[in-house]
Amino acid sequence: MAADDLRRSHLHGEIREQPAVLRRFLSQEQPTLEALAEAIHRRSITQVVIAARGTSDNAGRYAQYVLGAHNGLSVGLATPSLYTIYRRPPRLGDALVLGISQSGESPDIVAVLTEAGRQGALTAAITNAPDSELARAARYVIDIGAGPERAVAATKSYTAQLAAIAALSARLDPEGGRLEALARLPAAVEATLAMEIPIAAAAPRYRYMRHCVVIGRGYNYATAFELALKLKELTYAIVEPYSSADFQHGPVAVLEPGFPVIVIAPSGAMAAEMEEFMAVLAERQAEIVAISDVSECLAQARMPLTLPVSVPEWLSPLVTIVPGQLLAAHLAHARDLDLDQPRGLHKVTKTE
Amino acid sequence: MAADDLRRSHLHGEIREQPAVLRRFLSQEQPTLEALAEAIHRRSITQVVIAARGTSDNAGRYAQYVLGAHNGLSVGLATPSLYTIYRRPPRLGDALVLGISQSGESPDIVAVLTEAGRQGALTAAITNAPDSELARAARYVIDIGAGPERAVAATKSYTAQLAAIAALSARLDPEGGRLEALARLPAAVEATLAMEIPIAAAAPRYRYMRHCVVIGRGYNYATAFELALKLKELTYAIVEPYSSADFQHGPVAVLEPGFPVIVIAPSGAMAAEMEEFMAVLAERQAEIVAISDVSECLAQARMPLTLPVSVPEWLSPLVTIVPGQLLAAHLAHARDLDLDQPRGLHKVTKTE
Repeated sequence: MAADDLRRSHLHGEIREQPAVLRRFLSQEQPTLEALAEAIHRRSITQVVIAARGTSDNAGRYAQYVLGAHNGLSVGLATPSLYTIYRRPPRLGDALVLGISQSGESPDIVAVLTEAGRQGALTAAITNAPDSELARAARYVIDIGAGPERAVAATKSYTAQLAAIAALSARLDPEGGRLEALARLPAAVEATLAMEIPIAAAAPRYRYMRHCVVIGRGYNYATAFELALKLKELTYAIVEPYSSADFQHGPVAVLEPGFPVIVIAPSGAMAAEMEEFMAVLAERQAEIVAISDVSECLAQARMPLTLPVSVPEWLSPLVTIVPGQLLAAHLAHARDLDLDQPRGLHKVTKTE
Repeated sequence: MAADDLRRSHLHGEIREQPAVLRRFLSQEQPTLEALAEAIHRRSITQVVIAARGTSDNAGRYAQYVLGAHNGLSVGLATPSLYTIYRRPPRLGDALVLGISQSGESPDIVAVLTEAGRQGALTAAITNAPDSELARAARYVIDIGAGPERAVAATKSYTAQLAAIAALSARLDPEGGRLEALARLPAAVEATLAMEIPIAAAAPRYRYMRHCVVIGRGYNYATAFELALKLKELTYAIVEPYSSADFQHGPVAVLEPGFPVIVIAPSGAMAAEMEEFMAVLAERQAEIVAISDVSECLAQARMPLTLPVSVPEWLSPLVTIVPGQLLAAHLAHARDLDLDQPRGLHKVTKTE
């Protein structure tokens, strides 16, 4: 497969389009975000329930941390089968029920929003399809405006969903220059794209990797899940995401010398925990790949992938996923796999 | 390794002890469960936040479904790092905050309960250590009374935790003979232990299996996670748990002919979904292992593991995990691994 096939793929174009998508989103969606933030304040909401699948579910994981830490909201992920298969939905009371879906078409996610509306809960959707069923079921619709996403593996819609959540959080509590930090983010994502050169050089080393683990905690718990999903979708490797804490409660048993572990370790409050965790990995002779801007973390890695910019930790998932997307794409290319149409997948998956 | 080593292990003894542990728990803990149920009603609680790690976290997954479907409670899993590393806990308001831990010693789980108490939330612990830090941090303590668990991989403490949750749910809403159904459960678990004979015969087939996927949805989403964890801890295989819905939103790409997939498919409302999902697996030529009492599901499996008894679906996770525990133990034995002390693990894991 020629190198040109990679650069001609939709996937590659959509990864590189992310700074432009973020700029456009941040300039356009502010009125809806303001209205939703106002409704959350007005109803004194403290609980959020998120319904999502796949990549969008990982955006929901980010929301658990950013809305929890900065807005004091208690955020849980919905259990859609209670609404569809069992038809015994819980009481949602005074929660905000937030559906996240690129296509807005998965019936189980729509079912959660519909029931929430029936119960009188505040409903909102984050979607790339403002005319979708999901959007129709929600009171507030945040259009991520990412444009058509043609590669089956979601990239630009994920970072735009994260931006929507970050922007909502900053609107709700703008203290500490958070809106300004968010406005600087597209430039940081753009700078991060420069990592493609070292990542293209690193990918062939993992040509025959059958399985690996991705570790992230706190804000970047979401990144671990999303990077694991990209690697599964694009390279067919068996990849498991964990928080460093959960990993130590059992799964650590799978480690053997040479076992590849990708660690997401941007600067911030979690960096010390990640550094300590890497020492455990090193003791077990794991092969460590680090995505980090912290020299102590990078120094412990067999494969350091250095983030060229540092951003506030609450925004770091928008930056740390970019080398992950690039790694998954270049590894799929090294394996001569189809970048835009992985086997067995469709762009829109409809589950009940 | 002689067959006797398996039968002499703590793990094997603790798996087989489960009916007795359940009988004892159900006869002893009713007053505390009644008092907690009364407090939940009195405070008109609709939201539950669960803090747990590892096996106990999987018991929390069961609580999401059983307390959701039968008691209308909206149940989410806590994000402990918000309490410990970031020190920015969300507002827990009028939630029940429930800590689940065999040892009651993990500092991050204790921290969630302590903060919940500080905020005035209703707190409870499900633990095997009624004198632990966790128990001291909780207003209501449900002692699972499983006796010392000496094998590192938890088995009897897991089913006892599930029984505690099931009993709380039945106390909260006893309609439809739920307490009576629960009382019949120890006998069902005992009958299920007879599966050890076919499982011992089946295990060698998977001697060289490096990775697999475990699928369960609804009540048995928890079973998929717990069986995957047992297989990782005991056999060092790379095992990923999924709901059938989440699996189709991306991870399905990893399937190739012969890929082993264990499907948890007891009778009930979810069985039709599992049967349909198995047809997708069969199309992709996966190797299907089915834990089921549904003939249509068993017929689709290369390795049918037939549950000898049928129980109400909401109680099925207490039964379906038993063949899973036996499979993990016999597979570890086939691999000549230490059943009681897996590499790199300790019985009590303390994470911040």
